[in-house]
Amino acid sequence: MQKLSSVDRYDYTVCLADTDAARVVYFANMLRICHEAYEYNLARAGIDLGEFLGKSKMAIPIVSCRARFLLPVYYGDRLSIFVKPESIGETEFQLDYEIKSTMVEGKVLAIASTNHVCIDVKSRSRCNLPDSIRRWLEGK
Amino acid sequence: MQKLSSVDRYDYTVCLADTDAARVVYFANMLRICHEAYEYNLARAGIDLGEFLGKSKMAIPIVSCRARFLLPVYYGDRLSIFVKPESIGETEFQLDYEIKSTMVEGKVLAIASTNHVCIDVKSRSRCNLPDSIRRWLEGK
Amino acid sequence: MQKLSSVDRYDYTVCLADTDAARVVYFANMLRICHEAYEYNLARAGIDLGEFLGKSKMAIPIVSCRARFLLPVYYGDRLSIFVKPESIGETEFQLDYEIKSTMVEGKVLAIASTNHVCIDVKSRSRCNLPDSIRRWLEGK
Amino acid sequence: MQKLSSVDRYDYTVCLADTDAARVVYFANMLRICHEAYEYNLARAGIDLGEFLGKSKMAIPIVSCRARFLLPVYYGDRLSIFVKPESIGETEFQLDYEIKSTMVEGKVLAIASTNHVCIDVKSRSRCNLPDSIRRWLEGK
Repeated sequence: MQKLSSVDRYDYTVCLADTDAARVVYFANMLRICHEAYEYNLARAGIDLGEFLGKSKMAIPIVSCRARFLLPVYYGDRLSIFVKPESIGETEFQLDYEIKSTMVEGKVLAIASTNHVCIDVKSRSRCNLPDSIRRWLEGK
Repeated sequence: MQKLSSVDRYDYTVCLADTDAARVVYFANMLRICHEAYEYNLARAGIDLGEFLGKSKMAIPIVSCRARFLLPVYYGDRLSIFVKPESIGETEFQLDYEIKSTMVEGKVLAIASTNHVCIDVKSRSRCNLPDSIRRWLEGK
Repeated sequence: MQKLSSVDRYDYTVCLADTDAARVVYFANMLRICHEAYEYNLARAGIDLGEFLGKSKMAIPIVSCRARFLLPVYYGDRLSIFVKPESIGETEFQLDYEIKSTMVEGKVLAIASTNHVCIDVKSRSRCNLPDSIRRWLEGK
Repeated sequence: MQKLSSVDRYDYTVCLADTDAARVVYFANMLRICHEAYEYNLARAGIDLGEFLGKSKMAIPIVSCRARFLLPVYYGDRLSIFVKPESIGETEFQLDYEIKSTMVEGKVLAIASTNHVCIDVKSRSRCNLPDSIRRWLEGK
């Protein structure tokens, strides 16, 4: 369970659709924004997540997630999401997210993480992560 | 373009996730709620929309939609959505939605409609609607 | 940190909007569905969450959440969400959710939990939970 | 009802959360993406939509919307959304959106429009648009 060094930053501005009647970002939307940061990082690494969406024999579903919301996030807030991937054996990886304010230096608004397991679509049993993902986890 | 009589009612309570920082239902979520009413009506008629999601040779995508928002809709509001299907030839149908307040008799909060076209997934050309949908449009 | 007995069940049918191109419920939407179950339980107990949305001097934001996704959940699946509230001192409570299949007896699809802290809106410091919520946590 | 010339472009990459089990962007999400383009354009013009979210005496709700979906939009597709504002008297404006593929030159994937009316929050009657919005509509 080795901590990897690749850290990529995804910039995001909070939209009206992200907020709720409490005037802040709805909690589950923060996890969605984290997932967007993951998708952005994969795309930057030349990995097409679309390949694993239903046509492939393997899938990489999220098996668990968690988040801590430290400060309220409002409409129009500019965020920087940092994603740190961490390999967990041959079949699983974890992503740690840090959601910082772009407007106030160093202010952490939330932290989160998601665990992803590679499975054979038919048997739904674990299988080895594809090479492209493995290389990304290893920081290339 | 014959107006059909089958009218089914879908009850819905506005959730926090439906609202935005303006304290009302986010406009696009109202269209999502209308689509839920359509799905509910299909399920009640014994039609499994899931069959047309990617495994089938045909799909029935929405080709257009429109909505008018007459009154603000708030968190916790109880809605009744009425769906009126209308056949448009062999390959298309339109759904008209009326979103009423369940709390204030007869108060129309919004109206909307969506148009759905049956297509062959490979060629993406129009094809005849499946019999199950056709029977539903004809009021069974 | 006393385990409370009140268990309420919220029934939910998976909508098209809940799913993604991997053909299963998008992970963050499962947390949204859990929150809907919480809202349903509050409403059943006669508590209007709307009162705490911006007009009140207090708010009850979610400070953390976590979920484990045990089995894929598909379009049209009928779910039963069970919510168990647990009091954590005077200012905080935790909700534990069990998402079961209504179609296959006893099949647990996911588990989740959310922690909620009562705060003074202006100072953003912790304050005691309102009596209505406290009574709900104590099983009325 | 004068056609204005200001055209701004908003770039967007389709996320997993935008798609549904039919493997394409869920129709209502396309309208949400259009609204994001509107928010981006306002922010670029130095207008803070956040000011009109509940604290102000006026609000600018969407009173109607419509969209035509011309081609399927998939996970990872890169879009350019063009927004053309059009003034409709002193109290209303319309936004016309053109959603183009960034990957295939000139390919229009969808078109949409939304109508926005300025209202007094208390009386909910129409009032004149704020100067900042008016200047934006006039192309500055």
